[in-house]
Amino acid sequence: MKFPLGFYSFGKNIGIKDSSLDFAVIYSENRCKAAAVFTRNNFPGAPIYVGRDHIKDGFLQAIVINSKNSNVATGEQGIQNSYQICTELGKSLGISARDILPSSTGVIGVPLPIEKILNACSTAKTDLKPGNLEEVAEAIMTTDTRKKISYRTITTQTSEGVMFGIAKGAGMIEPNMATMLSYILCDFLPESGDLPGILKRVVDLTYNCITIDSDTSTSDTVVLMCSGVLGTIPDEVFESHLKEIATDLSKMIARDGEGASKLIELTVSKGRDDVQVTKIGKSILNSPLVKTAIYGGDPNWGRFVMAIGKVFDEPIPYDTLEIQLGGISVKGADNDTKTKLAEYLKSNEEIKILVNLNTGSFQKTFWSCDFTEGYIQENAYYTT
Amino acid sequence: MKFPLGFYSFGKNIGIKDSSLDFAVIYSENRCKAAAVFTRNNFPGAPIYVGRDHIKDGFLQAIVINSKNSNVATGEQGIQNSYQICTELGKSLGISARDILPSSTGVIGVPLPIEKILNACSTAKTDLKPGNLEEVAEAIMTTDTRKKISYRTITTQTSEGVMFGIAKGAGMIEPNMATMLSYILCDFLPESGDLPGILKRVVDLTYNCITIDSDTSTSDTVVLMCSGVLGTIPDEVFESHLKEIATDLSKMIARDGEGASKLIELTVSKGRDDVQVTKIGKSILNSPLVKTAIYGGDPNWGRFVMAIGKVFDEPIPYDTLEIQLGGISVKGADNDTKTKLAEYLKSNEEIKILVNLNTGSFQKTFWSCDFTEGYIQENAYYTT
Repeated sequence: MKFPLGFYSFGKNIGIKDSSLDFAVIYSENRCKAAAVFTRNNFPGAPIYVGRDHIKDGFLQAIVINSKNSNVATGEQGIQNSYQICTELGKSLGISARDILPSSTGVIGVPLPIEKILNACSTAKTDLKPGNLEEVAEAIMTTDTRKKISYRTITTQTSEGVMFGIAKGAGMIEPNMATMLSYILCDFLPESGDLPGILKRVVDLTYNCITIDSDTSTSDTVVLMCSGVLGTIPDEVFESHLKEIATDLSKMIARDGEGASKLIELTVSKGRDDVQVTKIGKSILNSPLVKTAIYGGDPNWGRFVMAIGKVFDEPIPYDTLEIQLGGISVKGADNDTKTKLAEYLKSNEEIKILVNLNTGSFQKTFWSCDFTEGYIQENAYYTT
Repeated sequence: MKFPLGFYSFGKNIGIKDSSLDFAVIYSENRCKAAAVFTRNNFPGAPIYVGRDHIKDGFLQAIVINSKNSNVATGEQGIQNSYQICTELGKSLGISARDILPSSTGVIGVPLPIEKILNACSTAKTDLKPGNLEEVAEAIMTTDTRKKISYRTITTQTSEGVMFGIAKGAGMIEPNMATMLSYILCDFLPESGDLPGILKRVVDLTYNCITIDSDTSTSDTVVLMCSGVLGTIPDEVFESHLKEIATDLSKMIARDGEGASKLIELTVSKGRDDVQVTKIGKSILNSPLVKTAIYGGDPNWGRFVMAIGKVFDEPIPYDTLEIQLGGISVKGADNDTKTKLAEYLKSNEEIKILVNLNTGSFQKTFWSCDFTEGYIQENAYYTT
């Protein structure tokens, strides 16, 4: 595993969870250019308020994250706690508190165990190890069943750098203008320096195209930090690597949706525009009936028709509408085709769906997972 | 059980299902004033096309329904089949095919077993029995676990009449301008004769306020048929009885949602207007995370905050927002309160939620059910 230059990090258990890692810090020797995209939920968590404040000037030098408690709906005290965490960590690292972005993920509405976190912040400097981001990827997990890491080496004529991303997801995920938690670090800078613009474009085509359960978290955060110690690379090179990593992480999040057994990749093509394609795509992937049919391997193609038709303000001509699963055209399927379709659904862990609206030429890909008893079980007793 | 005057009906098995009732006819001796509200799904079933056509003149004399097959996404042939059913039944009953409304409910995208249905239509007259609507309530069931019937006697100075309603629901239910299948019959007429206006107002406050799974069926139909043989009653008397019956049936549908163990009744009050209150109400009741928490008796009140906050275009002030479950205020709940809340959720089959937005004075009540493993199991293998 390769890490970008000058980044240090650690994950540890500080007693918020019973024994697994629950606290992490990412630190860069150099103050980094940075951009972030946050949840659109109207009741964002306390760290979102503080993060928006600290990212304003376009710079960050560290990120501090705890899992198990999201510090959401905790009022003024929650916000003060988030500021205090940055202050304490800033002291330990010898950097400005304003260059630190805080994240919390986990249960909503429970006050942070602030003393434990402040103690961990005060000794953070001594815990840092070069790179070591796998430990962070582990520490930010909640209902995730596996770590989510994707990176690329980027080679120029003079140097070899790294763009490195981690994420956590699993449930309460229909990102909209943002997503769960994800941090992407790089030792290059794009030539234009336009991190916010590049990040927004990439988020719109990746994290904003995944949905697990139609619920939008109050904590979603994507952060991009670039030290630029290796200089700059062309914007399009930077953006294409960022998009690859964000796509990898988005697919990992969808595949690891709570209780999921299958990754669903849906391409809605030949649509009028982004609005139409996105409404139809989300309607299909948020439909519990589509997601349960895919889980059970039930060739119930009519549910796709229903889900497209329930977008009242985007009527699609039925006759020219095409729906394919694994390359099998399903509209009006006879019994043989349905048998093939059931086989496809049952024998694949990655289900590919193509919906041609035939109303234009716009295309976009979305990801989700199937809907299983595991989702119900995980979420019926989440806090208890 | 009391039935409105002059109505005859039957339910029988004609071999679409293995052995349970799968076909029904309702017939009135008198041509009735009638109104209907249909699904807003952009791909409605064939019977919806024919029903819209036949109800245009405001009169009906019979309804014909089959279960197990919804005749949706069956193309031109499906529509011809629906017309043919009306023609055949009209011949048997000696009435105009244009005074018959057809309904089909069940799997999407499978051609109707038309010969079986036409045969049953041709002998319908001899199967009819006075009243007998319980049999119809049974014949229209699909994944319903029980019949849904509600009626009221209406007494005037000169006569005693009956308003009688039946419904079927269970899954794929987020009515919007319409609902699953429901038929309401009466021997009175409202004085104004404005059946469409009265029905629409009532549907908006009842069937349109239930949601099981956020999916909108392609077959939803509510029909009101009034023979008027007992004369007229004041509009407000008529409408209040209709609303009571529609509310009863809506609650029965929500309580019997696929796999459900609990009925949820949510009142969103002190809102700005219908738009705001409905968006927030549906967001809460469509949230899988809210519905699984209620199922598990998990006092995870933060999920209500999340669900209210994810209505991006309706920001609600957090400080004055109130959320109560069973009269227990849950925002910022301490451990004692959470224990009480968990007890409330676990020991009640009818969960009452009150959300005060404190942005105005508009109020509306919505119904849904919890989300259980049963829903997944029922829908993962629906057609197979």
